[in-house]
Amino acid sequence: MKKVVLIPDSFKGTLSSAKICEIIGGRVEEHFPGCEVVSIPVADGGEGSVDCFLTALGGEKVHLTVKNPYFEDMESFYGIIDEGRTAVIEMAACAGLPLVEDRRDPRKTTTYGVGQLILDAANRGVSKIVVGLGGSSTNDGGCGAAAAIGVNFYNEKGEKFIPTGGTTHEIARIDLSEKTTALDGIEIVTMCDIDNPMYGKTGAAHVFGPQKGADPEMVLFLDEGIKHLAEVINKDLGMDLSTVPGTGAAGAMGAGMIAFFGSKLQMGIETVLDTVNFSEVIEGADAIFTGEGKIDFQSLRGKVVIGVARRAKKKGVPVVVVAGGADNGIEEAYEVGVSAIFTINRLPEAFETSRYKSVENLTFTVDNILRLAKTLKA
Amino acid sequence: MKKVVLIPDSFKGTLSSAKICEIIGGRVEEHFPGCEVVSIPVADGGEGSVDCFLTALGGEKVHLTVKNPYFEDMESFYGIIDEGRTAVIEMAACAGLPLVEDRRDPRKTTTYGVGQLILDAANRGVSKIVVGLGGSSTNDGGCGAAAAIGVNFYNEKGEKFIPTGGTTHEIARIDLSEKTTALDGIEIVTMCDIDNPMYGKTGAAHVFGPQKGADPEMVLFLDEGIKHLAEVINKDLGMDLSTVPGTGAAGAMGAGMIAFFGSKLQMGIETVLDTVNFSEVIEGADAIFTGEGKIDFQSLRGKVVIGVARRAKKKGVPVVVVAGGADNGIEEAYEVGVSAIFTINRLPEAFETSRYKSVENLTFTVDNILRLAKTLKA
Repeated sequence: MKKVVLIPDSFKGTLSSAKICEIIGGRVEEHFPGCEVVSIPVADGGEGSVDCFLTALGGEKVHLTVKNPYFEDMESFYGIIDEGRTAVIEMAACAGLPLVEDRRDPRKTTTYGVGQLILDAANRGVSKIVVGLGGSSTNDGGCGAAAAIGVNFYNEKGEKFIPTGGTTHEIARIDLSEKTTALDGIEIVTMCDIDNPMYGKTGAAHVFGPQKGADPEMVLFLDEGIKHLAEVINKDLGMDLSTVPGTGAAGAMGAGMIAFFGSKLQMGIETVLDTVNFSEVIEGADAIFTGEGKIDFQSLRGKVVIGVARRAKKKGVPVVVVAGGADNGIEEAYEVGVSAIFTINRLPEAFETSRYKSVENLTFTVDNILRLAKTLKA
Repeated sequence: MKKVVLIPDSFKGTLSSAKICEIIGGRVEEHFPGCEVVSIPVADGGEGSVDCFLTALGGEKVHLTVKNPYFEDMESFYGIIDEGRTAVIEMAACAGLPLVEDRRDPRKTTTYGVGQLILDAANRGVSKIVVGLGGSSTNDGGCGAAAAIGVNFYNEKGEKFIPTGGTTHEIARIDLSEKTTALDGIEIVTMCDIDNPMYGKTGAAHVFGPQKGADPEMVLFLDEGIKHLAEVINKDLGMDLSTVPGTGAAGAMGAGMIAFFGSKLQMGIETVLDTVNFSEVIEGADAIFTGEGKIDFQSLRGKVVIGVARRAKKKGVPVVVVAGGADNGIEEAYEVGVSAIFTINRLPEAFETSRYKSVENLTFTVDNILRLAKTLKA
């Protein structure tokens, strides 16, 4: 093999995408010395996404002070790639759950800082901004971020305020007249891998509220607030987002990205593949290695492996999948472009045991795939 | 691929060698229609060995009445292969543990029937007899089998008797003068995969006595009896077998095969490889598939995978190993001829769970190995 491309998803809870690239790359160099190895650690929009893009493409990390989830100043960052043309932002960098530590309360937390990051990137003159959702501490429907770019929210008394999860129900009117013009003409893409709607049983508050610190009563309260926000968006901005898949992502930040930032929501992997110009990158490759923690029916609904396989198939490049596990009912994978799937469990061991052997198990498996590739002629 | 050879060991407790051949063969036909598939289910000498040889080579099954472990008549069998030139016998066919059901008592059981099988085969005019040890209910040092071919055992009073595990200590003299001449000129090979000596802490009684029904006291008694047998063999036949590896196999039947039948002990896989003319069979093959339940340090000491790999390497044929598990420290496998090793655990599951999924897990793994072989060019 002369050229291979590595583009694995992380194995949740065990191996990061970057670590997997490192392991596979090491084995490739061992068995095919001189082989060109292109590593693309996959960003999912959550924490670490900016670093993934910078690793894959090179670029610059911009550091700046913005508001944290409690409106306090903090040092945050975003990335500039593509020779300054594209900014990559992860909301976790200033609205993430780890940032609130023991102050988890989605009624009070804000995405204000995310709006500041976006605005700063816009002011640098980028033509495209990629925003990764995920890992948030908030449930404000993106109202905080919107406020940071000049969107005004008014209550029944006509008072301007910055809504948080606990006060979205107080919004009487949304006014875009003072929104910054810095974003005009900039393409904004929001990475979003989930389908949840803004509110209801499968909405932001019900599904993700508890992990952000909401008890059952608070979940209902937050859910009402987001439902109210959807109604006001519909009334004042003329958009019915109530049933749009993904609008419930990251405390309904998905909805806010559409309503206030004019963004589209896109699967993370599609965003990555677009951003890295994947179809060009794989030109002339002998194989692509991808993978994920578990390949199952859900993987076939637009996750990393399938996204990679679809584009690889068009170029006729073989796709080898390594996975922590493979469920039944995944034959469709082969149809869309997966060449072969290998799971990494060297021994019959439960995940509680094997999770600590991920490095050696992946190393062993990839090592043997490459040994086979060296030896066998079809 | 135009031709593949399948020669897997069984996966102990889950899949027989024949079943594994069937699964791999099915996948090969799916992905490489028209490919010649040579299946050699591996006999280990134990129960099922005769059928393995007959499946791999074709031949005839001879049915006859011999003595069971309690000197009662039973229907037993052996195989005739190689156009009548070779007989294959498994001692389990008339001295096996399942045959005694709830009458487990290694003081009383005999290998007499095994001698009868051997004698019958000799009288048919074969030039070679392969005897598989394993799965026995006996601890008679092969004295029963010897008696069946005319070897006489005398006690202190000069009385002739047929020693069993409980009476080997009474042997005062062994006399070969009335031994049949039917075996003269016939090569006898005994398949034996274990290294245990006749007696002592790692001998027949200590290691295998308990599973045959011996309590600790009986183990000591049986062990003394075999030690005594070794002394009489040394005295009367001039052979010191006391430290020969493998003589402790199958209730010291290993020793009896050497002393009374002039047999050599040989690893089962080597016997199989010789018997099927393996080096000729693999001529022109694109790949060999082998495997075992678990590949580990012990596998590298002469078990199936390594035996196969060594001969394959000489012919330059790639060897793909499928296994239920693979331990650390098996790098030597690659040096002796293994091309690649794949384990079949689709999901991180403990053996208690995964053992019931062996068929689907092996099918999945082989399917993907073949998919890779079809796609990837090194």
